[in-house]
Amino acid sequence: MAATWGRKFKITIFGESHGQEIGVVIDGVKPGVYLDFDEINFEMMRRSPGRDRYSTARKEDDFPRILSGVFEKHTTGAPLAISIKNSDKHSKDYESIKNLPRPGHADYTAFVKFGGQNDYRGGGHFSGRITAPLVFAGAVAKQILREKDIFIISHIKSIYDIEDKKFSRGDFSIESIEKLKYMRFPFIDETKIKKVENLVDRVKNNRDSVGGVVECAILGIGAGVGSPFFESIESVISSMMFSIPSVKGIEFGDGFDITKSFGSSANDEMFIDGGKISHKTNHNGGVLGGITNGMPIIFRLAIKPTPSISREQNTVDISKKDDAVLNIKGRHDPIIVPRIIPVVEAAAAISILDCIMMENEL
Amino acid sequence: MAATWGRKFKITIFGESHGQEIGVVIDGVKPGVYLDFDEINFEMMRRSPGRDRYSTARKEDDFPRILSGVFEKHTTGAPLAISIKNSDKHSKDYESIKNLPRPGHADYTAFVKFGGQNDYRGGGHFSGRITAPLVFAGAVAKQILREKDIFIISHIKSIYDIEDKKFSRGDFSIESIEKLKYMRFPFIDETKIKKVENLVDRVKNNRDSVGGVVECAILGIGAGVGSPFFESIESVISSMMFSIPSVKGIEFGDGFDITKSFGSSANDEMFIDGGKISHKTNHNGGVLGGITNGMPIIFRLAIKPTPSISREQNTVDISKKDDAVLNIKGRHDPIIVPRIIPVVEAAAAISILDCIMMENEL
Amino acid sequence: MAATWGRKFKITIFGESHGQEIGVVIDGVKPGVYLDFDEINFEMMRRSPGRDRYSTARKEDDFPRILSGVFEKHTTGAPLAISIKNSDKHSKDYESIKNLPRPGHADYTAFVKFGGQNDYRGGGHFSGRITAPLVFAGAVAKQILREKDIFIISHIKSIYDIEDKKFSRGDFSIESIEKLKYMRFPFIDETKIKKVENLVDRVKNNRDSVGGVVECAILGIGAGVGSPFFESIESVISSMMFSIPSVKGIEFGDGFDITKSFGSSANDEMFIDGGKISHKTNHNGGVLGGITNGMPIIFRLAIKPTPSISREQNTVDISKKDDAVLNIKGRHDPIIVPRIIPVVEAAAAISILDCIMMENEL
Amino acid sequence: MAATWGRKFKITIFGESHGQEIGVVIDGVKPGVYLDFDEINFEMMRRSPGRDRYSTARKEDDFPRILSGVFEKHTTGAPLAISIKNSDKHSKDYESIKNLPRPGHADYTAFVKFGGQNDYRGGGHFSGRITAPLVFAGAVAKQILREKDIFIISHIKSIYDIEDKKFSRGDFSIESIEKLKYMRFPFIDETKIKKVENLVDRVKNNRDSVGGVVECAILGIGAGVGSPFFESIESVISSMMFSIPSVKGIEFGDGFDITKSFGSSANDEMFIDGGKISHKTNHNGGVLGGITNGMPIIFRLAIKPTPSISREQNTVDISKKDDAVLNIKGRHDPIIVPRIIPVVEAAAAISILDCIMMENEL
Repeated sequence: MAATWGRKFKITIFGESHGQEIGVVIDGVKPGVYLDFDEINFEMMRRSPGRDRYSTARKEDDFPRILSGVFEKHTTGAPLAISIKNSDKHSKDYESIKNLPRPGHADYTAFVKFGGQNDYRGGGHFSGRITAPLVFAGAVAKQILREKDIFIISHIKSIYDIEDKKFSRGDFSIESIEKLKYMRFPFIDETKIKKVENLVDRVKNNRDSVGGVVECAILGIGAGVGSPFFESIESVISSMMFSIPSVKGIEFGDGFDITKSFGSSANDEMFIDGGKISHKTNHNGGVLGGITNGMPIIFRLAIKPTPSISREQNTVDISKKDDAVLNIKGRHDPIIVPRIIPVVEAAAAISILDCIMMENEL
Repeated sequence: MAATWGRKFKITIFGESHGQEIGVVIDGVKPGVYLDFDEINFEMMRRSPGRDRYSTARKEDDFPRILSGVFEKHTTGAPLAISIKNSDKHSKDYESIKNLPRPGHADYTAFVKFGGQNDYRGGGHFSGRITAPLVFAGAVAKQILREKDIFIISHIKSIYDIEDKKFSRGDFSIESIEKLKYMRFPFIDETKIKKVENLVDRVKNNRDSVGGVVECAILGIGAGVGSPFFESIESVISSMMFSIPSVKGIEFGDGFDITKSFGSSANDEMFIDGGKISHKTNHNGGVLGGITNGMPIIFRLAIKPTPSISREQNTVDISKKDDAVLNIKGRHDPIIVPRIIPVVEAAAAISILDCIMMENEL
Repeated sequence: MAATWGRKFKITIFGESHGQEIGVVIDGVKPGVYLDFDEINFEMMRRSPGRDRYSTARKEDDFPRILSGVFEKHTTGAPLAISIKNSDKHSKDYESIKNLPRPGHADYTAFVKFGGQNDYRGGGHFSGRITAPLVFAGAVAKQILREKDIFIISHIKSIYDIEDKKFSRGDFSIESIEKLKYMRFPFIDETKIKKVENLVDRVKNNRDSVGGVVECAILGIGAGVGSPFFESIESVISSMMFSIPSVKGIEFGDGFDITKSFGSSANDEMFIDGGKISHKTNHNGGVLGGITNGMPIIFRLAIKPTPSISREQNTVDISKKDDAVLNIKGRHDPIIVPRIIPVVEAAAAISILDCIMMENEL
Repeated sequence: MAATWGRKFKITIFGESHGQEIGVVIDGVKPGVYLDFDEINFEMMRRSPGRDRYSTARKEDDFPRILSGVFEKHTTGAPLAISIKNSDKHSKDYESIKNLPRPGHADYTAFVKFGGQNDYRGGGHFSGRITAPLVFAGAVAKQILREKDIFIISHIKSIYDIEDKKFSRGDFSIESIEKLKYMRFPFIDETKIKKVENLVDRVKNNRDSVGGVVECAILGIGAGVGSPFFESIESVISSMMFSIPSVKGIEFGDGFDITKSFGSSANDEMFIDGGKISHKTNHNGGVLGGITNGMPIIFRLAIKPTPSISREQNTVDISKKDDAVLNIKGRHDPIIVPRIIPVVEAAAAISILDCIMMENEL
């Protein structure tokens, strides 16, 4: 198990989908930070299900309760711990499929790892619900970063075969950040949204699911943050991003496309821009040798189709050691991508804050 | 800085391209392992440059010298430390470009991070040469894994626009592993190799460089290894892989392509295969919920074109704060992909061994 | 800040004396452990104040609420998180002395470290109350250790100048462990207890406080656990023990007395005892070269007098930067030693379990 | 195994007494530090044996060879690695006692832990010789600390029953530091030195050994460094100090004596001294609640008598599982205390530098 992540901004998560409570302990929050709870709750709400016809009908009360580390709305420097009650549990839904691991889920791997002793209901500790505390920690990190003029922005780069534009310089404004945050399907090219809606409706009717690509940028971070080799910016960010259920790939800058170019066009040339060193292009996504170069850090994540589908699927009966057929009754998102976006932003905020905090060397 | 990686199989690297020596300390090697130095040296040789017309003409004496941890050819359980002398240094080559950071390299970011105090020659600690100790550590890890019937296999998935086949079940034999290891351009589809050679010759003549995609599989690992969230198999492997200079992306299983499929086809259904639970497909690359499911762990890495090219490039003069033009004189690989393969295998061996060693819980 | 401790049995604590809740997240608890809550609550009760005339009159409701990691009374393998509500808070008591750091307490050092932003009430995160979650984690560790026939026993070695006997072989029985656990002042030499009671009454009447020495033994651990140098058994245990407020010293085996002996008498000679290798003496407290030798691990801790006394003391007014006189009104223990004993045992259980879990190498 | 220590100033040691080389990799040294090698070599010399009639007749060539991290006598920010050749090895001396673990040594515990695969010669990785790299790392740390006006001073508090004075304020000058560094038996009360010399001669003639207490102070560190609980100053320092072979106890400030006082006298009262907050006394050894209070950090270590004595001792024959008698032929220090002093200072420098580097939070 590995409930703790981070070096200086350290988070420890706990909880199970159908257990009592889920939460996070954040260690390393500097004292005296004013916490804007409206904003935190807005971030929680972005992740929470049940907002419209595209996401699951479950209702979660994701509003976090402070356990420690806050006094008169400011952080105290002590570990900041919060907890969220689990409610609206349909634990019975899962009883009947206890021995039938759902394909694409962690049911089988969890069973092997924990010898069948884990709480199987709703994925237990493997549930996407455990990302709610991550969003809380990210909201705190965002508020600290903002004081340093560092911002996170993200959008959907693609859903199935519907492609949005890649981020370009013009998208990196506070207005864009705000606008994308409020969109159900945050596409820069809004002409595509109707197509997406139709696709998702069709997928839902087919009792199927679909994935997509999320693109995220970290803006305002200066050059010189990170490390060569083992704690490279990419190492730190990717280790956090692959903690998010359903992520199957990550690429920085041009990513896999850079393999279709030559060195002469892939290298980001430098120039003096108003007296300061800058780069003409950003094929490397803001990172060279594991260290930021002052350009926006840009990365994309492959999000697989939600594994929970209500179609009949083949699986095995673990107790009988026999082939079996599975019909999942629960309520499921046909697409998880929009709800993953605030999680990705939170993960980005957490990882980059941790990197920045590591820089302050004697 | 972050010279140490790992939880139970812990490696600490040191060295600079033009410093005195480079090396690694491996902590956590169990005592009594017989080390096959012929094999270790073969792995070192696979990575070393100067083997043929496609790689740089530098000659490196990459044979490691044991400093501690080995007694009568067996490991003692003490930290296993080795060192490799730097030789054939043309440090003068770099003097003239000291103030001209090479585009695509870490020269500028290292300059900012270390305040210009770093050893700039040949990339210093950022040099790809520091991957040699990694290969040594990987060779040790491979020998320990082999006792558990766990093997690593890899090939070039693509160079520029020349695509090899993806791994399929038939490729996973000791014979394939051995064969690919000895190929200059390890393509499964050997009909493509002539094309690759022509491309690389052309790129070299253009004084340019090219990248590619490496595909790697970890075979023989059972189900149940890894963790949900922060120390997921993908988190651990990706954190290590992004430590390799020039890696810009990683994807597991179907990776980014999985976003073009539906849940009904992306989910890996299970069945009973000769009394044992198995999966019909491997879209998830052997990992579900951060934990192995018993299928081969499969991932691909995007390797950017070697940033060192002898073409004229635009950059800045750091000391004069002015635009500048750079002509790199040194000797450069037009393609780094074949030499990166043994590094990727080493990194895979190190990370999966560390994951396995974490499993042995009370 | 450093809220997390451990390598394989990892605990993360949170809470402040007068905040909302205090608690702990335990990561690394193997799945399927039956938790005996009566026993856990008994351990919590041993630490809690207000049991008799010798300890503070505050009443705390130290019964922990499970947040996650337990399903049907067995651990699930997910992080085991618990929380305890703070109640009976006399926060006003502290308002008047907000700017007057209490001598012997962390008030001044916390003020400097956290820039005055910390929750000063009752010591905030520095409060001895935060040891309650530690006792919970220790109770879980004890239950896991017991399955391996490993037990913890402790007693008061001295209070002020009243000395108990040192542990001898005869004390290491389940009966002794049980008996000492129920004693108010766990002295092996019970003839001293009346003297202790008189002393403590006198100290209380003097509005003063007194400390003592606690002796602890870990029984049943075989040889070969631990590491040379940085993760020696003594390093791991001492790092945990100095986390307990009021501990000012630790010694293993003969400790400081060993410096008054010669090598010929300090060395623990070995002999064959019923076919097995054993030691004639235990001057080294069960550890040689950082590794257990099969003898009981024995250590003693110096516990300083409770810093909270109601006598008038000299201090400074932090806001006025002037000398000041302090009269603490709160309710205070004249002696903390008996209440620290369950904390020491918990800390011993946690640290030795973590050491044992580290041993299981590939 | 645990070869790595530290959070921001991270050291990784390697080597075995009779292996090829011993050394250390230091990660986290800021770039641009000028290294005074005369001073480093002086520290190495202080620890090295063979300086006079009181220490072993072995001759070690302890001068470190730089492997990486230094360019033109300044640190580069890359890992600073050094190596020291082992020479003058009388490995044969140990062959005859291979199966006879030396009492008081780690021979038996190492045998169990490493299954007899460890290098047994001269203690292998458990040898006190491995403290030489620690002294190197400490010398680097001292030079960095000096820039911040932080100094380490130490002396022998006692040898057997011969007691030196405790440190008092008057001893904390550069002159004292320098003077004590050059003394064979650094006693503040020099009238005791003749007595010590006589004692050590007598012990040597008896083919026995003797231990003592070392007192160390860290001067010039301001208030506010450290953490409550798990990374308290005492936790960090003690975890490092118990890595030094032969240390059996540590106490801070009044240590065990504080248990013989009352709260009214043990509390360090504060007052305004020239406009600044200061403490009247230092019973707590400069640390309250795990955090520095601005007073010197003072601690004492119990050093056991050197376990190697040439007197006949009882032991067991591991291979025969039978009682045995041991006569050690090698050359041994009758007292290790003076040679441990530079190791203690190095360990103090390393640990306090790491603590300071942790403070620089965002």
